[in-house]
Amino acid sequence: MKQRSALDMYANGTAWWETSISDIKKNEIIIRGYPIEELIGNVSYSQMLYLLLCGEILSEKKAKLLECVLVAGADHGPRAPSIAAARMAATCGISFNSCVATGINVLGDVHGGAVEKAMHLFYSTASFVAAHPQRSISSIVEEQFEKFKNEGKKLPGFGHQLHDDDPRVRRLYELAQNLVEEGEIEGRYLMIAEAYRAHLEQWKKKKITMNIDGVAAAIQCELSIPAESAKGIFALSRGMGIVAHAFEELKNGVLIKGPCPNRDDLVRYSGPSKRHLEK
Amino acid sequence: MKQRSALDMYANGTAWWETSISDIKKNEIIIRGYPIEELIGNVSYSQMLYLLLCGEILSEKKAKLLECVLVAGADHGPRAPSIAAARMAATCGISFNSCVATGINVLGDVHGGAVEKAMHLFYSTASFVAAHPQRSISSIVEEQFEKFKNEGKKLPGFGHQLHDDDPRVRRLYELAQNLVEEGEIEGRYLMIAEAYRAHLEQWKKKKITMNIDGVAAAIQCELSIPAESAKGIFALSRGMGIVAHAFEELKNGVLIKGPCPNRDDLVRYSGPSKRHLEK
Amino acid sequence: MKQRSALDMYANGTAWWETSISDIKKNEIIIRGYPIEELIGNVSYSQMLYLLLCGEILSEKKAKLLECVLVAGADHGPRAPSIAAARMAATCGISFNSCVATGINVLGDVHGGAVEKAMHLFYSTASFVAAHPQRSISSIVEEQFEKFKNEGKKLPGFGHQLHDDDPRVRRLYELAQNLVEEGEIEGRYLMIAEAYRAHLEQWKKKKITMNIDGVAAAIQCELSIPAESAKGIFALSRGMGIVAHAFEELKNGVLIKGPCPNRDDLVRYSGPSKRHLEK
Amino acid sequence: MKQRSALDMYANGTAWWETSISDIKKNEIIIRGYPIEELIGNVSYSQMLYLLLCGEILSEKKAKLLECVLVAGADHGPRAPSIAAARMAATCGISFNSCVATGINVLGDVHGGAVEKAMHLFYSTASFVAAHPQRSISSIVEEQFEKFKNEGKKLPGFGHQLHDDDPRVRRLYELAQNLVEEGEIEGRYLMIAEAYRAHLEQWKKKKITMNIDGVAAAIQCELSIPAESAKGIFALSRGMGIVAHAFEELKNGVLIKGPCPNRDDLVRYSGPSKRHLEK
Repeated sequence: MKQRSALDMYANGTAWWETSISDIKKNEIIIRGYPIEELIGNVSYSQMLYLLLCGEILSEKKAKLLECVLVAGADHGPRAPSIAAARMAATCGISFNSCVATGINVLGDVHGGAVEKAMHLFYSTASFVAAHPQRSISSIVEEQFEKFKNEGKKLPGFGHQLHDDDPRVRRLYELAQNLVEEGEIEGRYLMIAEAYRAHLEQWKKKKITMNIDGVAAAIQCELSIPAESAKGIFALSRGMGIVAHAFEELKNGVLIKGPCPNRDDLVRYSGPSKRHLEK
Repeated sequence: MKQRSALDMYANGTAWWETSISDIKKNEIIIRGYPIEELIGNVSYSQMLYLLLCGEILSEKKAKLLECVLVAGADHGPRAPSIAAARMAATCGISFNSCVATGINVLGDVHGGAVEKAMHLFYSTASFVAAHPQRSISSIVEEQFEKFKNEGKKLPGFGHQLHDDDPRVRRLYELAQNLVEEGEIEGRYLMIAEAYRAHLEQWKKKKITMNIDGVAAAIQCELSIPAESAKGIFALSRGMGIVAHAFEELKNGVLIKGPCPNRDDLVRYSGPSKRHLEK
Repeated sequence: MKQRSALDMYANGTAWWETSISDIKKNEIIIRGYPIEELIGNVSYSQMLYLLLCGEILSEKKAKLLECVLVAGADHGPRAPSIAAARMAATCGISFNSCVATGINVLGDVHGGAVEKAMHLFYSTASFVAAHPQRSISSIVEEQFEKFKNEGKKLPGFGHQLHDDDPRVRRLYELAQNLVEEGEIEGRYLMIAEAYRAHLEQWKKKKITMNIDGVAAAIQCELSIPAESAKGIFALSRGMGIVAHAFEELKNGVLIKGPCPNRDDLVRYSGPSKRHLEK
Repeated sequence: MKQRSALDMYANGTAWWETSISDIKKNEIIIRGYPIEELIGNVSYSQMLYLLLCGEILSEKKAKLLECVLVAGADHGPRAPSIAAARMAATCGISFNSCVATGINVLGDVHGGAVEKAMHLFYSTASFVAAHPQRSISSIVEEQFEKFKNEGKKLPGFGHQLHDDDPRVRRLYELAQNLVEEGEIEGRYLMIAEAYRAHLEQWKKKKITMNIDGVAAAIQCELSIPAESAKGIFALSRGMGIVAHAFEELKNGVLIKGPCPNRDDLVRYSGPSKRHLEK
């Protein structure tokens, strides 16, 4: 994305706040051209999100698949930093939306961020495949994989610290495959993701499964969603769990709940021994 | 909500992180009792949110109505502080989720917060109505309304600085009424909301419409959603617009975009004239 | 604070962004009238903060006392939710300032918020004292204290879940008393705070000490700082600890650190047993 | 920074929350070995920050210089996104600390983030200089500068969209030079920064000045502050302005203040014309 100064753009005639997303006038709210009252009741949450983000109405079947991704990532319990941060916030006396913001704020490059990286990988691999129609996906994936390995980078979208056969992955993959069979999506990115998995498995000489980030990335590529928007989409998915957990803590009525009880095995000071200022 | 110390609760045998929302084990994710793989593909976004928040699966028709509320509030353009804050954040070099958090952080008591206040009003009015079966809703609403007026408080859920016939309100009200007619929801809270509107109109001697907060509140009451969770739900609704607008700004590639161009009518210093430190 | 619409104020001739704090022009930065280059090197952190917030330069001795309050609250270890939230954020791949924001976001009404409440109490008690010159502070404090008790409210500024003789409190109180003796501050609010402590002790029939919030509140009242700004000041005090702890975690290089290890005594699911969707 | 799993570290015997910063026990607060009551009144804000962050007490003169950097960056008016975001937040009904967090959240790679980049540049240049004692700083800087140019990157720490002779820069540079002359700091990084400025000026064939980020970076390098902590330090500097501006807006009592008035030159929709859903 070309970087520019806001003042330059304004000097060149764009409005300071120029948007192609929505037009708000007295008693009229237009979203990407559509009057809001025609959208309400006729488009689903995932269709509305896609319309706002990408500008068009996603077909019902595709929207359903995106909704499955949103549902799948909604919660991973209070040991996830996003959930724990929101729950702790709920015990500190800030407004509920600020508790939710606290949780969403931590969904960064590391916590959920692999979706974006995997989408970049799958999109760039697909471009390469398209540019070399005579070569097999498998050989191109192998080549890209070697590049990743040589740069000492971890392939995004595979492996999980807890699950090695994640029930969300199996289910999402199956639902996506159904749409491939129905001709609703092409299946190109699912194929690329699977090729990476197979190569990784072969190289590691042990069973490797796609993780939730990997399958979510492949599906979002099938829907032509920009990679750079992945963290925003995940914020709305995990956001559901964040809302529910913060609310549960709020109902508990607990005050200033820290991360864990004060036990020596959990909290320990390892700095200098007691000392005094030199006078 | 009774307030307690986290240490006391832990001493009394609850786990430090005790939750009835989800159970996460190796290759198993249970949400309110349901295996996640049975939810994916079978429940919609709004059903998943309700399940996480309230513990049960909402009927499809009710879930559709909740979805309509989420869609209705998704965007109100870059002049809304939540949208503008997220767009400005996108020009400052933080991760996309943090842009979204910035927008959601400002959806407080004033910006979207009237839903919660209106829900409290409607729930407490309904309790009063239930406790006095011999009295008319209208007379009870009149009494409550007088109390509000006498305390100098503004009735939440009515009036808007821009719209006086908000297309979202008409549409949501109509869709909700359809469900009343089908017997899917009772319509008690819609009736109470309408009674308040009528009294306000009579008192102000001019046409008064419910605003989006008011109709959203009435619908969420019909679905037995706790008032205290309203800001969290709105965060996931407006979150869609926040994601889309932040992304648009990110694609623009603008750097450090402030709120407006630097013009004397827009930005002005009104403090003391130039002065110097006394030595 | 009278609430008004931004559009009304703009229509009445204020600029959209009108401020008496700073004037920024090409090669000129004026803060409350003072050229920035005359402030740099001549005013301390706490003088600059006071100038920005309250409009004038605080005397060196008073500024030193405010600095003591800032230093005193800087850290309370990783069991404080603000510190823990920032440390967890640092393991999630967001920018460092966003980690700091995550920590500061949770310093709300409950976590540090008692300073503001205690300042309101001390200011209103002082007004009452001023209006009744013939009555003793002690009798007025007793009366106010009864009111608090009768409303079932907790007196802010006294008691701590860990400390019953907080070393910060003793030290701050002593330093403030020194300034009273030097005639630099009046000592009225310290006297009021002490009167509340004495009454509370008498009522509870056990030793009661002021907590850090209480003594910080009394000192900030002595400096004529507005009660409503207390959470902002504390954000810059605890902000130091948040910065340091987030940075320590960042240097650790730990990925996605949740609140505690996954042990049954710490994390437990208490929701419904496994169940399945009805078809 | 080597990346590791929290579970692995815990399995290897570190506590879950292990810190060398502070030890909190009943009636005892130890910071980097020092009892808190000995720090209060004896160390300044910038000494406390440095102690927490870097582990040792900075000399008074060095601490004064760091304080000058904190004071210099405190405010740049409501057109800075950080200030505007916090002011808008203050009109939306969230707690004051959350307004501050909103402002700090946007101080990312682009908005203030050049300090960190410049520190990396200066530190790596200094290492190179140290490793090649026979070469002149100027020739090494020239070489590094060519590398930056060839990679199409912008040299961090030089140039400003508004100021071309920033009063903060002149003042900070002068104060730092005083300490060099007194032998308090070495001046190596100031020399390197100046060498970059001279080369840039020569190359651009026009007067180039260091910007506030550049001089702040050189000074922080002189104090051995880690580059990666720069955004945290700036958060506490600009944090002062954010607190003051948010508070000013709060006192104004304005409700839901967006970024600008609703005028066609400022807010414009450029998306598709009105259209309708296909049935």
